[in-house]
Amino acid sequence: MRTELITVRTGGSPVVRDITAEAGSFVASEKDGLLHVFVPHATAGIAIIETGAGSDDDLLAAIDRLLPTEDIWQHRHGSRGHGRDHVLPAWITPFASLPVIGGRIALGTWQSICLVDTNGDNPTRQVRFSFLAG
Amino acid sequence: MRTELITVRTGGSPVVRDITAEAGSFVASEKDGLLHVFVPHATAGIAIIETGAGSDDDLLAAIDRLLPTEDIWQHRHGSRGHGRDHVLPAWITPFASLPVIGGRIALGTWQSICLVDTNGDNPTRQVRFSFLAG
Amino acid sequence: MRTELITVRTGGSPVVRDITAEAGSFVASEKDGLLHVFVPHATAGIAIIETGAGSDDDLLAAIDRLLPTEDIWQHRHGSRGHGRDHVLPAWITPFASLPVIGGRIALGTWQSICLVDTNGDNPTRQVRFSFLAG
Repeated sequence: MRTELITVRTGGSPVVRDITAEAGSFVASEKDGLLHVFVPHATAGIAIIETGAGSDDDLLAAIDRLLPTEDIWQHRHGSRGHGRDHVLPAWITPFASLPVIGGRIALGTWQSICLVDTNGDNPTRQVRFSFLAG
Repeated sequence: MRTELITVRTGGSPVVRDITAEAGSFVASEKDGLLHVFVPHATAGIAIIETGAGSDDDLLAAIDRLLPTEDIWQHRHGSRGHGRDHVLPAWITPFASLPVIGGRIALGTWQSICLVDTNGDNPTRQVRFSFLAG
Repeated sequence: MRTELITVRTGGSPVVRDITAEAGSFVASEKDGLLHVFVPHATAGIAIIETGAGSDDDLLAAIDRLLPTEDIWQHRHGSRGHGRDHVLPAWITPFASLPVIGGRIALGTWQSICLVDTNGDNPTRQVRFSFLAG
C-alpha cells in the first residue's frame, strides 16, 4: 500500500475544500485499484459532491440546520458550537474509497472529492491518501 | 481488481432500489476479498438497510424531512428542490465496501445493498462494482 | 484477507461503544494495508468520533433529534420508534475502512472507532474486522 499525508489549508471558517486534483495526482502513476481518502481529525469529513455550482455552500447550510452551533452540546471545548463539529464525522464520514482504473479515479462527471471542515479553530488539516493495487 | 459497470432503472421519482442480487452475482465466482460499490453520479447514494418492510419508504421520508425539496438551495438547476439531491451524497455516501467470504457478501440477515436516488430527472443510473481479492 | 467476527455487549439502551482497542488488537500483527470494520446488523452503524468528552452522548442526542423515536415510521416491528433504527444505517454507515501502517491504525489523536447501536432490543452485537494487505 502506497500512502501519503498532505496538508490542506482550510482557513478560519467552515469550508468545503475540493481535493480532487490532489487525489488525482496521487494515483496518476498507478494502474487499477482502490483509492482510500482519510482525514485523521475528529472534526472533519470527506464528501463526494459537485462543487462550483452552489452545492458546497448548500452543504454547509444543511450542516448548520441539522447540527446547529447552539448550546445543545455536552462537548464544549473550543469555540461556541464546537460540539457539533465533533458529531459531524458520524454523519459525514472521515473516510472515502473510490475505484481507480488505469491511473484515473473513476468519478462521475460532476463528482468531486471534498474535505468538509466546519471547525474554524484549525487553519490547516491533514488528509491521507492510500492506494491498494487490485 | 475486477470491475464492472451496471445500469439500474430508477424511474422518474425518488426510489430506494435493492441491488443486492446484482452485487451477489458479481462476486459469486470470487473467494475472499472486498466488494466496492460505487455510484458515479452526483445526486445518488448507496445505503445498506433492510428492504421490503417499510424502511425503504421511511428512508425517503427521512430524506424529505432532513433535506427538504424547498427553495432553500443555491443550486437550482433541474427540477424544483433538485439542490437537495446534490447535498444528499454528503450524507448518504455514493460508495460502500463490504467483506466477501467464499464468494458471498457477508451481509447480515436483514441487510440489503440499495441505490438511493431522489433525483427523478434521470430514469437510469450506473453502478460500479469492483472486487479486490485479499 | 484475514477476517474475524467479534461479539460486542451493547446492553438494553442506545449506546456508542468504543471498539478501537479491539480493532487495534486485530491488526497489531499486520504491516501495511486497509482495515475494514463492518456491523452485520440492519439497525447499527460505525462512527469515527472522539469519545469520553461528551460527543458520544451528543451523537445519540443528535440521532434522536434527526431520526426521532416517534410514530412516523412505517416499519413498526419491535419497540416503539424502532423504525428509526432501521433508517439509521443509511446515515451512519455500517462499514468503515481505515489505513493501517506498520500494524497500527492511522487514526488521528482524538479519533475512535465506535459501534453506534440505538436498538435496545439486542443486548449483544457482532462486528466483523477484515484486513487487506497492501
